[in-house]
Amino acid sequence: MARPSSREQLIDAGLETLHRQGFNGTSVQDITEAAGVPKGSFYNHFVSKEALALEAVQRFWENGAQRRAPLEDERVDPVERLQHYFRKLAHGAIKDRFRRGCMIGNFSAEMASQSPDIAHRLSDLYKEWSRAIEACVEEAEQAGRLGSGLPAATVAAFLLNAWEGALLRAKVEQSPSALEHFDKVVFSGLFKPAGS
Amino acid sequence: MARPSSREQLIDAGLETLHRQGFNGTSVQDITEAAGVPKGSFYNHFVSKEALALEAVQRFWENGAQRRAPLEDERVDPVERLQHYFRKLAHGAIKDRFRRGCMIGNFSAEMASQSPDIAHRLSDLYKEWSRAIEACVEEAEQAGRLGSGLPAATVAAFLLNAWEGALLRAKVEQSPSALEHFDKVVFSGLFKPAGS
Repeated sequence: MARPSSREQLIDAGLETLHRQGFNGTSVQDITEAAGVPKGSFYNHFVSKEALALEAVQRFWENGAQRRAPLEDERVDPVERLQHYFRKLAHGAIKDRFRRGCMIGNFSAEMASQSPDIAHRLSDLYKEWSRAIEACVEEAEQAGRLGSGLPAATVAAFLLNAWEGALLRAKVEQSPSALEHFDKVVFSGLFKPAGS
Repeated sequence: MARPSSREQLIDAGLETLHRQGFNGTSVQDITEAAGVPKGSFYNHFVSKEALALEAVQRFWENGAQRRAPLEDERVDPVERLQHYFRKLAHGAIKDRFRRGCMIGNFSAEMASQSPDIAHRLSDLYKEWSRAIEACVEEAEQAGRLGSGLPAATVAAFLLNAWEGALLRAKVEQSPSALEHFDKVVFSGLFKPAGS
């Protein structure tokens, strides 16, 4: 039976290479080389590159859990929690010099029409991610910080999608401007200041 | 000398295949087959697939000129012009059953770190596109339809990026929901109704 550690190494290496180079820009050999395992062993663990990609994007999502945790901290103002969350994501993108962007966004562009399985997984991840944001939006709405009586789920999905779009542009421009525009329009235009 | 018509056929076929399959998912042979020209003739016209991709994405942008023209029609309320424009884009995506998404967004995700030339071209196209939207936002701001005193250029860039993100998600979900969320949040949350 295959050793679990090789499987783990392949998922880690797959996450790294697929995130950086995209699905079609990464070969199985790129992944096995990055994992330091023999090429032939790949198919002991995964039936296809697609099967590994499904695990890798899931891992990408799980790796973000710690970052998402403060979204649930109800002692902090909900709009501040949201702003802080997106600023942490922006900080990560800047540190990475916009090289990789978000794996979920990248795969959406590249794989949605190529792989129904990956599209389905991405769709589930977007839903989970939206829900994590929605709880804050809901609280913000109850605190009168969102003007328009829009459903919290709609605003949460919008924020997430707008964030993904901003990250795409930051990647192209190699600049944080698009992330700054997101911060400015969302937190000075869409949400109202506390006590207003 | 190469016949201009083969070159045109290759750009058209490149636009179609690269838009549908992405850069790394499309081979030169896919393009020459779609163009109905011999594979060997490709390099009479383009030094590389990347060189063709640059022309194809430029063509993609130019093909949108007719759609963008009403953005300049100052007889119409600026917020209505914007909403109408994004609704036309949404209509196009729905008609395409979300298969291809926006070529500019797709290339941003896939090519920004792989090709500095393509990244540079995309960056220029985003700038032009933002400017086309900015004129409307500026008018809307002067008409008191945008609450927050945000710079029109910032709002325009944000809208475009948010649109690209929504389109990514629509592609994954094979559903217009993300485009509807965009419409709702932007035109009921960010802009104020006329006469308010």
